[in-house]
Amino acid sequence: MYRSHTCGELRKENIGEEVILSGWVQKLRNKGFMMWVDLRDRYGITQLIFDEERTSKEIMEQASQLGREYVVQIKGKVIERESKNPQLPTGDIEILVSEYEVLNASLTPPFTIENDTDGGEELRMKYRYLDIRRNPVKESLMFRHKVGMQVRNYLSNQGFIEIETPYLIKSTPEGARDFVVPSRMNEGQFYALPQSPQTFKQLLMVGGMDKYFQIVKCFRDEDLRADRQPEFTQIDCEMAFVEQEDILNTFEGLTKHLLKEIRGFEIDNFPRMTYAEAMRKYGNDKPDIRFGMEFTELNDLAKGKGFPIFDDQELVVGIAVPGAGAYTRKEIDNLVAWVKRPQIGANGLIWVKYNEDGSLKSSVDKFYSQEDLLSWAGLSGAKAGDLILVMSGETNKTRTQLSALRMHLATELGLRDPNVFAPLWVLDFPLLEWDEETNRYHAMHHPFTSPKPEDIKLLETNPGAVRANAYDLVLNGNEIGGGSIRIHDKATQAKMFDYLGFTPEEAKEQFGFLMNAFEFGAPPHGGVAFGFDRLVAILDGKETIRDYIAFPKNNNGRDVMIDAPAKLDEAQLRELHLEVKL
Amino acid sequence: MYRSHTCGELRKENIGEEVILSGWVQKLRNKGFMMWVDLRDRYGITQLIFDEERTSKEIMEQASQLGREYVVQIKGKVIERESKNPQLPTGDIEILVSEYEVLNASLTPPFTIENDTDGGEELRMKYRYLDIRRNPVKESLMFRHKVGMQVRNYLSNQGFIEIETPYLIKSTPEGARDFVVPSRMNEGQFYALPQSPQTFKQLLMVGGMDKYFQIVKCFRDEDLRADRQPEFTQIDCEMAFVEQEDILNTFEGLTKHLLKEIRGFEIDNFPRMTYAEAMRKYGNDKPDIRFGMEFTELNDLAKGKGFPIFDDQELVVGIAVPGAGAYTRKEIDNLVAWVKRPQIGANGLIWVKYNEDGSLKSSVDKFYSQEDLLSWAGLSGAKAGDLILVMSGETNKTRTQLSALRMHLATELGLRDPNVFAPLWVLDFPLLEWDEETNRYHAMHHPFTSPKPEDIKLLETNPGAVRANAYDLVLNGNEIGGGSIRIHDKATQAKMFDYLGFTPEEAKEQFGFLMNAFEFGAPPHGGVAFGFDRLVAILDGKETIRDYIAFPKNNNGRDVMIDAPAKLDEAQLRELHLEVKL
Repeated sequence: MYRSHTCGELRKENIGEEVILSGWVQKLRNKGFMMWVDLRDRYGITQLIFDEERTSKEIMEQASQLGREYVVQIKGKVIERESKNPQLPTGDIEILVSEYEVLNASLTPPFTIENDTDGGEELRMKYRYLDIRRNPVKESLMFRHKVGMQVRNYLSNQGFIEIETPYLIKSTPEGARDFVVPSRMNEGQFYALPQSPQTFKQLLMVGGMDKYFQIVKCFRDEDLRADRQPEFTQIDCEMAFVEQEDILNTFEGLTKHLLKEIRGFEIDNFPRMTYAEAMRKYGNDKPDIRFGMEFTELNDLAKGKGFPIFDDQELVVGIAVPGAGAYTRKEIDNLVAWVKRPQIGANGLIWVKYNEDGSLKSSVDKFYSQEDLLSWAGLSGAKAGDLILVMSGETNKTRTQLSALRMHLATELGLRDPNVFAPLWVLDFPLLEWDEETNRYHAMHHPFTSPKPEDIKLLETNPGAVRANAYDLVLNGNEIGGGSIRIHDKATQAKMFDYLGFTPEEAKEQFGFLMNAFEFGAPPHGGVAFGFDRLVAILDGKETIRDYIAFPKNNNGRDVMIDAPAKLDEAQLRELHLEVKL
Repeated sequence: MYRSHTCGELRKENIGEEVILSGWVQKLRNKGFMMWVDLRDRYGITQLIFDEERTSKEIMEQASQLGREYVVQIKGKVIERESKNPQLPTGDIEILVSEYEVLNASLTPPFTIENDTDGGEELRMKYRYLDIRRNPVKESLMFRHKVGMQVRNYLSNQGFIEIETPYLIKSTPEGARDFVVPSRMNEGQFYALPQSPQTFKQLLMVGGMDKYFQIVKCFRDEDLRADRQPEFTQIDCEMAFVEQEDILNTFEGLTKHLLKEIRGFEIDNFPRMTYAEAMRKYGNDKPDIRFGMEFTELNDLAKGKGFPIFDDQELVVGIAVPGAGAYTRKEIDNLVAWVKRPQIGANGLIWVKYNEDGSLKSSVDKFYSQEDLLSWAGLSGAKAGDLILVMSGETNKTRTQLSALRMHLATELGLRDPNVFAPLWVLDFPLLEWDEETNRYHAMHHPFTSPKPEDIKLLETNPGAVRANAYDLVLNGNEIGGGSIRIHDKATQAKMFDYLGFTPEEAKEQFGFLMNAFEFGAPPHGGVAFGFDRLVAILDGKETIRDYIAFPKNNNGRDVMIDAPAKLDEAQLRELHLEVKL
């Protein structure tokens, strides 16, 4: 037996017991005649004591050779600690060691195994097995497990069935790039790894499994932007015989359950907003509504007063920043510089200070009177002490820029409390989006999303205005889930493929099995998918997903710990009938 | 709202209620003035009734156009059924339809959607979404979900953490072939899909996550024998600071829990047997112990009596087949022919009938007296009315042949009741097995398995005799799980790689990260992996795993529904820097 208790378990009540513990040496303090060792395992830390008077000389000598991260097993008696440590659950006791054995030695770790480590990102990824020993990473992984269990039990209790869909599927050209897998048995042919189980879950609906879910890995061979992974985990769900409202209610229920069970955070009905409203009010389809600073469109008030920068532009739009009226000139200049950076790309930023004395001072005093500025303040809800910031330009671009500024200011002002949760449904997404590169419309969600029946007539005349039965769940400014009601009849699906530029042959080759399935009684259905990695991080109040993934890859898609990907040897390539051409 | 109730829900208590149902048309009976429709969904079947007197003419006419597998939504009143159907949970009621809508039409399905279908295997795989509508498949998938939930909740309650390990890893040459995944970002390099998360779970132990599990897909590019899949699911587990006994107890607990919760089958401590004993008694490392017919070695009794077929051979071994003394000559001849088939490859089969009158009659009466034969009967436990069957030859080969015969007879005699469960631990597997092809020893389990300390000295002198700390859990003649205590120190692991023919460079290239990890305080650890597909099938009393997999592949590794794998277009290959060479 390696242990009678864990290192997080012993309390005052155990005093006098003989125990066996195993774990890692977290810390040693040696006073010559006395020595203390903090012994650590997954469950906590227990202090061991060796002292000349009560410990054999042999053990004292051996133990003094211990190093950090050695694995040891000890036997000893639980005694009351002289100087208690209230920070530690085991802080009332310590173990007077009578026997001990080194189970394994350790080299000095390349970084400190402490909550705040001195190791850089790449080093910690290379030695991920050591990084996992640190509390923040360990706890992140345990938190992830807890969320996963809650999701599964909640959905299962609601009648959902978890069904595993295949990983070796067929490559489709839609959207991001597939990872492919050459088949040895089927020479010259390839499987693809799924970007999502989308078509399979729809086939399950055709198959009558009317409530499906799966926590499942998905794969995208994309150039990795920050905090993206080539393999990621999705909570994938689909329901049949449902309307959008049923789906929203079901997954609002799941999210409420998680917020309550995991974070003790209770919330009533989630607010809802159309895509158009989100863009108008926040310049963003995933607005962070933990704070205000909604957009105010100023076209009517600001145009036609001779200020050419506004007069010539499509949109003039501003936000009132609460309490920022006290910003110094330098602080405001910094904001102007911030929006002019290439990442944001704005031409400039107009500001209006609403002074505490009720007067207004702006960067455009030449063109606007106090009354003009006061009317801006009125419309934007600015009060004395606030700062109004205004941008102008092409509508979409300007909204995006002002949205970035809004988020930047919220961060600066400390308005983005990670332990406050503000969920939001964004509804009525456009069915199509214009792709500058290929010069045509693409499906915004995916080609299986149904248009709103009342908008179908617009497909020919104004495709960009067609709304879809598509929805996102936004939490604290992150899209944590999204889905749609699907097309379930063959004719509409064929029309959609046609519309998206597939020839009938291409549509048949790539999605023939789905079109076929729709011939045999497909029920109305729809679903949703949550980004599990992101959901877990946000629930835990964190910004990055990496600590919630046991073995993440770096931004080049490499696992630096195992050094993958790697070259194959020639024999392996030959067996796969492949040749590498660089 | 598509439905107020499911098709499995309504009972006598609901009579009088107005309800909405949606589902598929299972069956239509039309008597002209009256029509009945069986409406089916995931939850059951409800009978709809249309009759001239109470249903509008329009609806009667439309409804008579319905076909099998049409998707319809109906509104109507729950009424008491005239001729009740006690087979059906909803058999007391029917719905008098007042409104109805066809949600989708259906072509005639290519096979009948009934419990016993007329569709062949390939056809059903091609239209898997229709096959899933059939009760047996639907229930198999729901059963699988139930087992999965039980596994997760049990292990989680025992303190295990589910941790996702990566799917895009590194190819290793050990054992079966890897599926590989070319990387676009890392030109000319490949990931591999994991055959199991073996090294990652060991790294998690080094990382201190001392109880890990995962229900996870694994991949093997093997030539597919019957009832194998290129992707399969494993319950993968690992524990640190444990000895073999701790692991056996933990997973015996899990298995008991599943048998009880899922099948209501309670069982005391699982019997245990060494590998050597299993081979001696059953000629098989996964013996089915639902029935007896243990082997009896007859060398001492049967050799030296002038029968050359026994005298010249290494092993003479028999089984007593209960009640088979009444077998006719023809039946016995069939058994002899059966063992001589190339699949079994025996030279012959000696038989001894223990007649009801106490006399013995055998195929070797020329060489053996009644007393001789009586002594065989005594040793093998045969009684009057039994049949003794004896084979001889090289030990391993003969045991394998007799084992096949034993299983064949048990099936013939109906001794393999799928609803009786006989688990068994098989312990002390050999560390190494001789590979005829490469003419050297391979790791029987995998290269991370620890030898028994007391056997290490045999590595140089008698490698085949070295026992490992390895164990299998056998259920009804199937290996459902297997595992081992791992090597956890770098020196032993290096020695093992050396022993298995890896050069230090190869070992470092392929497993360097694990060897490195062992430098930093690896704890003693071990684990187990269960074949989830097989476990689920056996728990459900079934022989094949295919119905427990939503979208299985055929024996050529093809998904005939989506027609994968498939060729890639040239552009995709170019992007991956690959050329196909057939």
